[in-house]
Amino acid sequence: MKMKDIQSRPDRRKIPIQKVGIKDLSYPVTVLDRKNKSQDTVATVNMYVDLPHHFKGTHMSRFVELLNRYHGRVSIRELETILREMKTTFACASAHMEIRFPYFMAKRAPVSRAESLMDYQCGLTGSLEGRGKREVFDRVIEVAVPVTTVCPCSKEISTYGAHNQRSRITIRVRTRELVWFEELIEIAEKSASSPVYSLLKRQDEKHVTERGYERPRFVEDVVRGVAQQLRKNRKIKWYWVESENMESIHNHNAYALVTGENR
Amino acid sequence: MKMKDIQSRPDRRKIPIQKVGIKDLSYPVTVLDRKNKSQDTVATVNMYVDLPHHFKGTHMSRFVELLNRYHGRVSIRELETILREMKTTFACASAHMEIRFPYFMAKRAPVSRAESLMDYQCGLTGSLEGRGKREVFDRVIEVAVPVTTVCPCSKEISTYGAHNQRSRITIRVRTRELVWFEELIEIAEKSASSPVYSLLKRQDEKHVTERGYERPRFVEDVVRGVAQQLRKNRKIKWYWVESENMESIHNHNAYALVTGENR
Amino acid sequence: MKMKDIQSRPDRRKIPIQKVGIKDLSYPVTVLDRKNKSQDTVATVNMYVDLPHHFKGTHMSRFVELLNRYHGRVSIRELETILREMKTTFACASAHMEIRFPYFMAKRAPVSRAESLMDYQCGLTGSLEGRGKREVFDRVIEVAVPVTTVCPCSKEISTYGAHNQRSRITIRVRTRELVWFEELIEIAEKSASSPVYSLLKRQDEKHVTERGYERPRFVEDVVRGVAQQLRKNRKIKWYWVESENMESIHNHNAYALVTGENR
Amino acid sequence: MKMKDIQSRPDRRKIPIQKVGIKDLSYPVTVLDRKNKSQDTVATVNMYVDLPHHFKGTHMSRFVELLNRYHGRVSIRELETILREMKTTFACASAHMEIRFPYFMAKRAPVSRAESLMDYQCGLTGSLEGRGKREVFDRVIEVAVPVTTVCPCSKEISTYGAHNQRSRITIRVRTRELVWFEELIEIAEKSASSPVYSLLKRQDEKHVTERGYERPRFVEDVVRGVAQQLRKNRKIKWYWVESENMESIHNHNAYALVTGENR
Repeated sequence: MKMKDIQSRPDRRKIPIQKVGIKDLSYPVTVLDRKNKSQDTVATVNMYVDLPHHFKGTHMSRFVELLNRYHGRVSIRELETILREMKTTFACASAHMEIRFPYFMAKRAPVSRAESLMDYQCGLTGSLEGRGKREVFDRVIEVAVPVTTVCPCSKEISTYGAHNQRSRITIRVRTRELVWFEELIEIAEKSASSPVYSLLKRQDEKHVTERGYERPRFVEDVVRGVAQQLRKNRKIKWYWVESENMESIHNHNAYALVTGENR
Repeated sequence: MKMKDIQSRPDRRKIPIQKVGIKDLSYPVTVLDRKNKSQDTVATVNMYVDLPHHFKGTHMSRFVELLNRYHGRVSIRELETILREMKTTFACASAHMEIRFPYFMAKRAPVSRAESLMDYQCGLTGSLEGRGKREVFDRVIEVAVPVTTVCPCSKEISTYGAHNQRSRITIRVRTRELVWFEELIEIAEKSASSPVYSLLKRQDEKHVTERGYERPRFVEDVVRGVAQQLRKNRKIKWYWVESENMESIHNHNAYALVTGENR
Repeated sequence: MKMKDIQSRPDRRKIPIQKVGIKDLSYPVTVLDRKNKSQDTVATVNMYVDLPHHFKGTHMSRFVELLNRYHGRVSIRELETILREMKTTFACASAHMEIRFPYFMAKRAPVSRAESLMDYQCGLTGSLEGRGKREVFDRVIEVAVPVTTVCPCSKEISTYGAHNQRSRITIRVRTRELVWFEELIEIAEKSASSPVYSLLKRQDEKHVTERGYERPRFVEDVVRGVAQQLRKNRKIKWYWVESENMESIHNHNAYALVTGENR
Repeated sequence: MKMKDIQSRPDRRKIPIQKVGIKDLSYPVTVLDRKNKSQDTVATVNMYVDLPHHFKGTHMSRFVELLNRYHGRVSIRELETILREMKTTFACASAHMEIRFPYFMAKRAPVSRAESLMDYQCGLTGSLEGRGKREVFDRVIEVAVPVTTVCPCSKEISTYGAHNQRSRITIRVRTRELVWFEELIEIAEKSASSPVYSLLKRQDEKHVTERGYERPRFVEDVVRGVAQQLRKNRKIKWYWVESENMESIHNHNAYALVTGENR
């Protein structure tokens, strides 16, 4: 039996749709890992295409079919290929894909050298828009890095101690060539009062405490520190840097944002 | 004792900060209500200003002091005034404020007329940028409206039944004059297969089920239906319409977005 | 037209249901406030009853109708009355209600005495079970209190500084008489290294930093400190005390739990 | 330099702590898979021990060290071994571990047989309490399964259509022998109006829609259906079954719970 194809029917409202697709699909992915070549993790996937004004609907199942064909290869290297295939499959003018996942790096404690795994929320966002020679591929690489920040004001005005907290630095970049998540994570960690670790022995805790106290950073310092490193990195074309401090003395957060372009 | 003012110290990195401030502050607010004049609710508040490159930090406590002065009056009418006061207090070039809160409307069930309260997530985002004659006030009004959507494809191809689900329509608008949350909520509810209610008696459930089945809507239909109404509304300058369907036959969501401007 | 009442049909599986009802209903409530008599806030409400094995279903709309009758009076004083009415309405053996809401207290900064509002997540859980003389009313009062904790180990082993973080202390109690949220909040704040505040001027920040440094507390110390106060409070019959520290040097949390009964 | 061991100092408050440890650690794990032997995923891990009243604190880093030794082998088979090692490492009377992770199963669409991956939230909770011959190992296996439910009342009273929605069935069991996540997932899916799928072609959508309409289920029916199957399964000692329906006609959920023991 041939079934009716409701989605392909005409729509007369003359309203093109910028993005239509699937959101929050949980999916296992294998991503590139600088040290271990690849890493298995679980992503949240969004895939959208545009829909011209004269079509009623999108064939949603095609997103999942397409994703299934790339199962085990959803990485930064395949992103453009997947988007191109989306454009072909949907015969559309623009395709968008967003994937976010926990990413792990083995990290050594600063003194004991004890190794443990740290988790970072990483992501890739891509779009392919326009036709023929005017087609433009756009890709944003994203990392969210937990760090420690020690408050410079609190340190300066207090006879002893200084309030500090867990903060999360989010970096998004457009790049001229491939940039590893690891590079961005290192930039974030260097800009904070201290990196955080899953495993710290007592001698490490002493080191991390003292080092953080020696390097107090406002939320403003953190985003400026990251931006400064990204500005002089020739691989970076555009950056978006946020830091959010889960202030230990308040029940709200401190926040700062710097964004800019490298010419 | 005069304390050191670390925040006012110079910074030499030549990096201006676009936004710095407080995020996710929980705060009781009184907002305008079309029917009852005002309504008490609890908001999540973000307040940011820019920071010129030569200053090290922002005085975060001033955001909360300023908010306290407007306690009980944080509404769409005060938004520009608060932003102007932020600009004065921080001697800055731009000020931003975002508040989001549950908002309740009394709603009658379609047949029994039983009344109950429906909750909508509403929000106001404002910014005031530039100096003197070039100062620009920008305001976005936001509502997130839960509705029912019945799938037209499922209805058409099935001998009986049709899958349906709770969906959330988000509308953001820039307007030429004040638009009530209630107006936007009504536009969203009209564009879905059916509104949702807190309280439905059996006769209402029958009505809502049959009405939804008679009015199947794809996620694409929903955003087009909302956009169509916003396009012909002369109060609206700009719109951003999203719908997200918590598909009853999948564990992921269907999503569509239309945005545009009215000349 | 008389409609069929499917819910009242028999079920033959012989499986009684312990709890059936509505969950995560957003609802505006007015709760008791020690200082201001009452406070308007927005609650998340769960209401459940048991269902004997021989009935097929529950009439869900009755929960919302019942709640509507208590609109504006959903407080600790009405909890038992509401539960009793649930038992009558549903002709059931047990009724359960859970409400949770942000609750605000005006709080003065320790040195400047600047006043601001602090938010706490508070809750009430009640159940009424059994029939006639064997009916038992059970009520749990709950507060979740954000505080600062300074790590005693980090302080002791470090030449300067000490890592600290925002922590959340959750207290649940069964009581012999009414206990104010404010009393439990004060107990939690006293047991931490320092309370947190929405508004702190520089002299307050110095005070809070130094005071916290002078009073380092492990997550274990925090729950013991709370338990110690609850143990000697004759109003308290049973307590459940958790603390969760959003460790500033890790991306995971430290957690401790103490529970016990006062004879 | 020998560092002070603050945690091992005495505490004089005479308050033993039931649980102390680490919470919400993100960690990659390899879990057992009925079909593919093993599956890589990312877990959230909680590990707690008790602390006798006379000790001040716990050595938190030991939890992560211990977990690292089992890296790649954190499965149901190792749970008791890990708990025993926790008891030895901490010289404690009780040890607790909770891990939760997305788990994927390849699933074929009902008509087209198109294969795709479905995600389920699975978990393992274990504790080992008491000493010597009185030591008791307790293990709970948990699955959360998204399904479709079609409302029997809505179907019965409506001339056409029936409201339906995504629901989530949570099953927790104590068992006499190993039970696969897959077995529990199948029990949940059989008890709903229909399973959900990541990938459905048009003929599948027709099938799923009609099948769901033919098998309407209240939230009460769902938990009873699961309980009925668990009651006659001799591997099951104890069960806890919840269903939560994201009602398509309300903005709140319907909820039911059945728990019981098999003698």
